[in-house]
Amino acid sequence: MEKLRQVIENNDTGSGRIFDLFIQALIVLSLISFSLDTLPDLSESSRRLLASIEVLTVSIFTLEYLLRVIVARQKLRFIFSFYGLIDLMAILPFYISTGIDLRAVRVFRFLRVFRAFKLMRYNRAITRFQKAFGSIREELILFFSTAGLLLFFAAVVVYFCERDAQPEVFASVFHSLWWAVVTLTTVGYGDIYPVTVLGRVFTFIVLMVGLGIVAVPAGLMSSALSRAHGDHE
Amino acid sequence: MEKLRQVIENNDTGSGRIFDLFIQALIVLSLISFSLDTLPDLSESSRRLLASIEVLTVSIFTLEYLLRVIVARQKLRFIFSFYGLIDLMAILPFYISTGIDLRAVRVFRFLRVFRAFKLMRYNRAITRFQKAFGSIREELILFFSTAGLLLFFAAVVVYFCERDAQPEVFASVFHSLWWAVVTLTTVGYGDIYPVTVLGRVFTFIVLMVGLGIVAVPAGLMSSALSRAHGDHE
Amino acid sequence: MEKLRQVIENNDTGSGRIFDLFIQALIVLSLISFSLDTLPDLSESSRRLLASIEVLTVSIFTLEYLLRVIVARQKLRFIFSFYGLIDLMAILPFYISTGIDLRAVRVFRFLRVFRAFKLMRYNRAITRFQKAFGSIREELILFFSTAGLLLFFAAVVVYFCERDAQPEVFASVFHSLWWAVVTLTTVGYGDIYPVTVLGRVFTFIVLMVGLGIVAVPAGLMSSALSRAHGDHE
Amino acid sequence: MEKLRQVIENNDTGSGRIFDLFIQALIVLSLISFSLDTLPDLSESSRRLLASIEVLTVSIFTLEYLLRVIVARQKLRFIFSFYGLIDLMAILPFYISTGIDLRAVRVFRFLRVFRAFKLMRYNRAITRFQKAFGSIREELILFFSTAGLLLFFAAVVVYFCERDAQPEVFASVFHSLWWAVVTLTTVGYGDIYPVTVLGRVFTFIVLMVGLGIVAVPAGLMSSALSRAHGDHE
Repeated sequence: MEKLRQVIENNDTGSGRIFDLFIQALIVLSLISFSLDTLPDLSESSRRLLASIEVLTVSIFTLEYLLRVIVARQKLRFIFSFYGLIDLMAILPFYISTGIDLRAVRVFRFLRVFRAFKLMRYNRAITRFQKAFGSIREELILFFSTAGLLLFFAAVVVYFCERDAQPEVFASVFHSLWWAVVTLTTVGYGDIYPVTVLGRVFTFIVLMVGLGIVAVPAGLMSSALSRAHGDHE
Repeated sequence: MEKLRQVIENNDTGSGRIFDLFIQALIVLSLISFSLDTLPDLSESSRRLLASIEVLTVSIFTLEYLLRVIVARQKLRFIFSFYGLIDLMAILPFYISTGIDLRAVRVFRFLRVFRAFKLMRYNRAITRFQKAFGSIREELILFFSTAGLLLFFAAVVVYFCERDAQPEVFASVFHSLWWAVVTLTTVGYGDIYPVTVLGRVFTFIVLMVGLGIVAVPAGLMSSALSRAHGDHE
Repeated sequence: MEKLRQVIENNDTGSGRIFDLFIQALIVLSLISFSLDTLPDLSESSRRLLASIEVLTVSIFTLEYLLRVIVARQKLRFIFSFYGLIDLMAILPFYISTGIDLRAVRVFRFLRVFRAFKLMRYNRAITRFQKAFGSIREELILFFSTAGLLLFFAAVVVYFCERDAQPEVFASVFHSLWWAVVTLTTVGYGDIYPVTVLGRVFTFIVLMVGLGIVAVPAGLMSSALSRAHGDHE
Repeated sequence: MEKLRQVIENNDTGSGRIFDLFIQALIVLSLISFSLDTLPDLSESSRRLLASIEVLTVSIFTLEYLLRVIVARQKLRFIFSFYGLIDLMAILPFYISTGIDLRAVRVFRFLRVFRAFKLMRYNRAITRFQKAFGSIREELILFFSTAGLLLFFAAVVVYFCERDAQPEVFASVFHSLWWAVVTLTTVGYGDIYPVTVLGRVFTFIVLMVGLGIVAVPAGLMSSALSRAHGDHE
């Protein structure tokens, strides 16, 4: 029992590391098979292979979950812990979807993506990310709301500039808000852009001022991440 | 009277905080209803609901404005203060638009966006932003004019490279200026881009040099914001 | 004479500042009129007005140039100085173009943009830019050549991935080089992009690695500019 | 012999510098001729000229390689060193391709791009880049995998939001992954973007959070490069 616990909960020992790597490889395999499953023109035999992989991975994840519950010193605490719930989320949809009719299966198939969260247990960057996020949470909320206000204001002004020239494209403030997001993050898909002189001049001003503001949350996150990095060294 | 003043002007007391949160929620509600109002195919009953919300919010904003005037120790000073004018701007368009014919209403509807500025009273990030902006105002003007010169120069050169190949797209220096803005901010909508060899080689050069220059105002703003943040801590 | 010199060469005195502001306003007026001149459907009367403005500004720039030569202590040295040549470039095209036939005028019209350089005399940011550029010239050359190599390598690989799928779009390594420039600066016009799986996977890798490298020259320039800014304070 | 070694291996002496510059010029010439060779409508005489340049450059590169082997004190060690293999890669494809049939030549033509790597010997920025890369390798792997997870998660969510509205464009998770790469690097070609309300709201959230994370590898690389720069001074 104590030996099993060391294999599963510890990744310092040799067998613990092998167990971890095996589970990680299985998660990645499961995610790849999940992605392949969405390809539109798969042959019947490929679909059957993917279904087999699904059954196999869910079986092993179930076994892993049961083992983790068994070796846990405080069983209930593990079950309701963050990683315990993630582990449950990774297998539960499979069992529920087999019992119900086909239409709802589609939604449950989507839930398989939550297996990706199982990888968080092994990714130190995400731990740092959580730490970084926590240290600047208040700042982020503050600047997100400011960026939100700027986006809203830019959207409204451009909506009133463009709605007569492009009533189909700038159909409402919400369409214009999509424009503001795509423009101020400098993605610029090209599906929506101002054509009037007024709209373009305003876009120029908003870009020159707004890039600095929209860049703040990203900059805060970056610097908090590198600070969280410094603490580890 | 003194009690009312504490509720309205102070946000340290419990009832003051509740009053602030209530007004903020109302502003957000008003802005959402304003945005919904621009949706093209709303049913008649939805429009009537939005109009009711408008009357309700304006009524409460009017009450709030009057209360703020009443509790203010120096009434005239409050009325002509920044926040006093913003509060007036948030309600005045409604009263004017009800008295006049329908065509001009559209302009007044736009003015409702200024209610967003009422949120500034509660957003500490904007206070910081103002402070940051003030501390680097001279720098910003200097680099904005430099960025402007670069944009103008790039626009003229690309205009002369492209006008024979794309007379419709690069129709004038102003069209080309729009290209320069969209390109050097790396938005790149794809509505206007060079196709000649000369135009593309020049675009490459301008991008390599220009990204550094156009990034300066945004960078200055970001660092000034984080400095303003540091002062608070 | 000494008084005239102080007005023209000095911008500390009151009349010197007024002279400077007047010349700057004239340059901006000249550039705006130059830009307006490129608009495709101008009325005949507008064209005549712009031509008059052109004659007027060139006359004043000529007068200014002559005055600067007269008050200069070392006349030849001023004439062949950077600003002396810029001042000459700003007026010479006008005089040459009036003597020759119409076809060549178009080229000379383009040269009017060099008047923008006259603004450099008054823009402290450009002086700083020159200083910053000088201090990191060697670095910039080094990283520009590295960025160039990366762009070239990315272009060749994507060319060989895409030329069979899109022979018209990725017609040669030069077309692909344009793709590399537009992609790694994150402009992304959308006129050229990979469609094959191999091309897209490679684009992903190049973007993750390349953004860091292409950002280096811009980053160096930005930090050198703020260092040059620090020296002034 | 000792004299020859100094010319080839040393770039401190005058003749060594000239030898280096000559080889560099030849590499650049070879790469330009390689690029020109891909142009679709070249005349027969141009093709013949490019072929002659190819024979000439390969001859000189072969001579250079033999000389480097001859002057090397430990011949085998040079042959299997990084630069030794690069030098061999730069000439070998030419000799193999002349012996085999025409179809495979196309692949070997591509290998000519590896000559670009010969420039690495002379580019100090690349040495720094290697050093910078080495010092943050572990960090990069960590954040690349995090960025990868984020991209995957964003792709899956948007796929499920958009597949019903745009079954052709968001055909599978892999198509959606391409969207995630193009969006979170802010390239935004415009070939694939969300159109549903849910997809757009999610894009907004992912952009605000994700820009900070995707920027981390690029930021790490930039700062490591400038640190590697500081060590040299």
